[in-house]
Amino acid sequence: MHKELVRFLQDNHQRYLAEVGELISIPSVSTDPARKTDVQRCAEWLAGRLCAAGLNGVQIIPTGGHPVVYGEWIGNPGPTLLVYGHYDVQPPEPIEQWTSPPFQATVRDGRLNGRGTADDKGQLYLHVKAAEAFLRCRGHLPVNIKMLFEGEEETGSPHLEAFLQEHRDLLRADLAVISDTSFFSREIPSICYGLRGIAMVQIEARAGKHDLHSGVYGGAVPNPIQALSKILAGLHDENGRVTIPGFYEDVRPLDRCERQELASLPWDDQTYAECLGVRDLCGEAGFTTIERLWLRPTLECNGISGGYQGAGFKSVLPAVASAKLSMRLVPDQDPARIADLLARYVHAIAPKTVHVSVHYVGGARAAVTPIHTAGIQAAAAALEHGFGKKPRFTRDGGTLPVLAYLKDLLGIDAVLLGFGVPDENAHAPNEFIYLDHFFNGLQTVAEFYDQLAQRWMTISAGGVSSRY
Amino acid sequence: MHKELVRFLQDNHQRYLAEVGELISIPSVSTDPARKTDVQRCAEWLAGRLCAAGLNGVQIIPTGGHPVVYGEWIGNPGPTLLVYGHYDVQPPEPIEQWTSPPFQATVRDGRLNGRGTADDKGQLYLHVKAAEAFLRCRGHLPVNIKMLFEGEEETGSPHLEAFLQEHRDLLRADLAVISDTSFFSREIPSICYGLRGIAMVQIEARAGKHDLHSGVYGGAVPNPIQALSKILAGLHDENGRVTIPGFYEDVRPLDRCERQELASLPWDDQTYAECLGVRDLCGEAGFTTIERLWLRPTLECNGISGGYQGAGFKSVLPAVASAKLSMRLVPDQDPARIADLLARYVHAIAPKTVHVSVHYVGGARAAVTPIHTAGIQAAAAALEHGFGKKPRFTRDGGTLPVLAYLKDLLGIDAVLLGFGVPDENAHAPNEFIYLDHFFNGLQTVAEFYDQLAQRWMTISAGGVSSRY
Repeated sequence: MHKELVRFLQDNHQRYLAEVGELISIPSVSTDPARKTDVQRCAEWLAGRLCAAGLNGVQIIPTGGHPVVYGEWIGNPGPTLLVYGHYDVQPPEPIEQWTSPPFQATVRDGRLNGRGTADDKGQLYLHVKAAEAFLRCRGHLPVNIKMLFEGEEETGSPHLEAFLQEHRDLLRADLAVISDTSFFSREIPSICYGLRGIAMVQIEARAGKHDLHSGVYGGAVPNPIQALSKILAGLHDENGRVTIPGFYEDVRPLDRCERQELASLPWDDQTYAECLGVRDLCGEAGFTTIERLWLRPTLECNGISGGYQGAGFKSVLPAVASAKLSMRLVPDQDPARIADLLARYVHAIAPKTVHVSVHYVGGARAAVTPIHTAGIQAAAAALEHGFGKKPRFTRDGGTLPVLAYLKDLLGIDAVLLGFGVPDENAHAPNEFIYLDHFFNGLQTVAEFYDQLAQRWMTISAGGVSSRY
Repeated sequence: MHKELVRFLQDNHQRYLAEVGELISIPSVSTDPARKTDVQRCAEWLAGRLCAAGLNGVQIIPTGGHPVVYGEWIGNPGPTLLVYGHYDVQPPEPIEQWTSPPFQATVRDGRLNGRGTADDKGQLYLHVKAAEAFLRCRGHLPVNIKMLFEGEEETGSPHLEAFLQEHRDLLRADLAVISDTSFFSREIPSICYGLRGIAMVQIEARAGKHDLHSGVYGGAVPNPIQALSKILAGLHDENGRVTIPGFYEDVRPLDRCERQELASLPWDDQTYAECLGVRDLCGEAGFTTIERLWLRPTLECNGISGGYQGAGFKSVLPAVASAKLSMRLVPDQDPARIADLLARYVHAIAPKTVHVSVHYVGGARAAVTPIHTAGIQAAAAALEHGFGKKPRFTRDGGTLPVLAYLKDLLGIDAVLLGFGVPDENAHAPNEFIYLDHFFNGLQTVAEFYDQLAQRWMTISAGGVSSRY
């Protein structure tokens, strides 16, 4: 990369931080109906920055939910790169556990703290600033760029599939890049080539018409909390396996080479447990922790609620109890089918004294990209430039629903070029991104654009048809 | 009872309703710290009414928590009756399920609706008005009366024991009466001669230091909701019996005559279930529904909480989950011992990957009074006068911690002269008392004072040492 560009990116650190601070300050919590106008405001702010960066065709495109922000720069014979990111964030609760306010970007101990600093506002903004730097320093970008930032990733991207379908022509590209993942560790730059899918479900157990006095009725009237507990307790066996019949049926057998490669990553269960503050790890018998996290499907309860939960005590026999569950999926599990299997099983094991309903909220399939492709190799070279080390190749337990949509609807793979760290507290209090990851990430993204253009030309000249 | 008194009570219906309306309108929710001043305000209002009724020595006596309201009338050689009631109420939540506002006494379809109409404001006020009527019409009461209204019954009366101990001399009496229970049914007046005890416990399961991303960590890190579910699911066996070792050890064997007597009460499980809107009843195998409700100990989960419970979905692996439990006890179970047995068992069955804490909140022993005593017989005669039917004798599954304290500290039994109905929604939305139960209850209470005075004299004259 030209020295001039490297210097420009270095010289503007304070401005970048100030701008990210503005972005973090907008509480764009997509799952909370009360935050709808904040999400809209965030889209407008972002559109303004795309214009300021020198992108063209900037627009806020409505969807059935929160809008998409779009901008592009086209002017090369070279490849077209679709940059995907999301400007919505997770709820900040429990707020009292934050050291500094969640919606105030705060620099502390070499970290930038705040909701969305890592997931994904801080990371998507690297692309905006890298593009700006190219256009200011050189007047053009090495690749054509289309930026698409959605506002519903944290609720499972319910309208993204329809959006991509409808705007197929606008979004036509050769490759996608997403900066929303983490390094393997603080010290080990890495490229994530696979994510798990997800199926989200709500279960409700209902007994009577309304809450009852637990003394007067206790002992003879069904208790939906106890029924729900029995259901949840029945979803795993003593080996940590999910008990839903058929749950593992479509799971693609693990590749022996891949297991060996992942097993060579530096890892210590005890350190990991201590770092998280948990007494011990757990999970499916017969698999390492990395395999449990990245390669195996799971079922987790994300929330439970029933009866009196306030201060003090209330002797109530509640009418309703409910739980939110998510299952993380691997190739080739289908989310709707898995949710259906869960629903059948829950109905089968539920105590017959309560009414149980199971609602499929949404889902996405898992996505794994081969690591020998040009996009991933360009990313590897860029990371070595930005961080001074050869990256490792990893997978991740989280879900980016967009991956399956990009593949199905636009026919393109995605490179996951993320700069977070595993303990960044995404989705939890005190989310942060390391300042040096942020600034080196900026250099890496700019270098990635250059590397991709070069590799693209080389491959094109060599006449290779499958280019990455 | 003198006709003049009967008429006076009838002529003042509208005034009584207006006054009870004022009492209901004060949201004296004792468990809610935010309602502390409302509870105090309620005590002050009640003290004002005791003065207005003509009682002497009216005072608001501080305790370690909410205050006690006291008033008396002494002027007879005859027995002294301690009237106990509680002016605090259960929380109104879920508020959206109330047809009319919880803290607004609303007459509808022959019912007086509002939080506390049945439990216990509406019922305790009958004694205030009966005493007032005697003093206005006759200038004196047939028995000496001491009224003690506490403000912490709904939180398990944490300071009542100390209060009774401290004010033993002031409260010296021959018998207590409490109007806080229900008729067997709308049509069948009854006297409750036994209540269950209670042991209240909070369980908390904790995994990591804070909430985590359920995708990134799910499958290898312990989930406290799932651990708590396993614990709760393990507290009952397939026969509906509590599995805590030793739980049934001190349970006094059931009396065959009593079981036969209770079995002769009109009862239909299907009607009962339909009335509550539950699909089916459940409970401990080998016992009838009435026995499960009144004679057998139980364990119920009153509330559960963990992870994200708001609108939408949050892919969080929570750090903490908690539950509130109560066990209803029978003679001769000891609450602290039972809570200790639960704690031991919970620790024994809890997954070793989570930290579990069990906190004993408080409790009270069960109380059963023989039905041949003079107090209960006076109440039976009064009920026949007020409702035109001989009452049946019943028990109840709820708890009045005061019963054990009265017995232990003042050496007296209590007559439970209550006018509610089983489906009155105490502790639930749309609590009510039937208007005719309220007004006939007023006649009954006044007659009870007369009957007690007469029977007391008779027994005294006959030289029977154990007077009731």
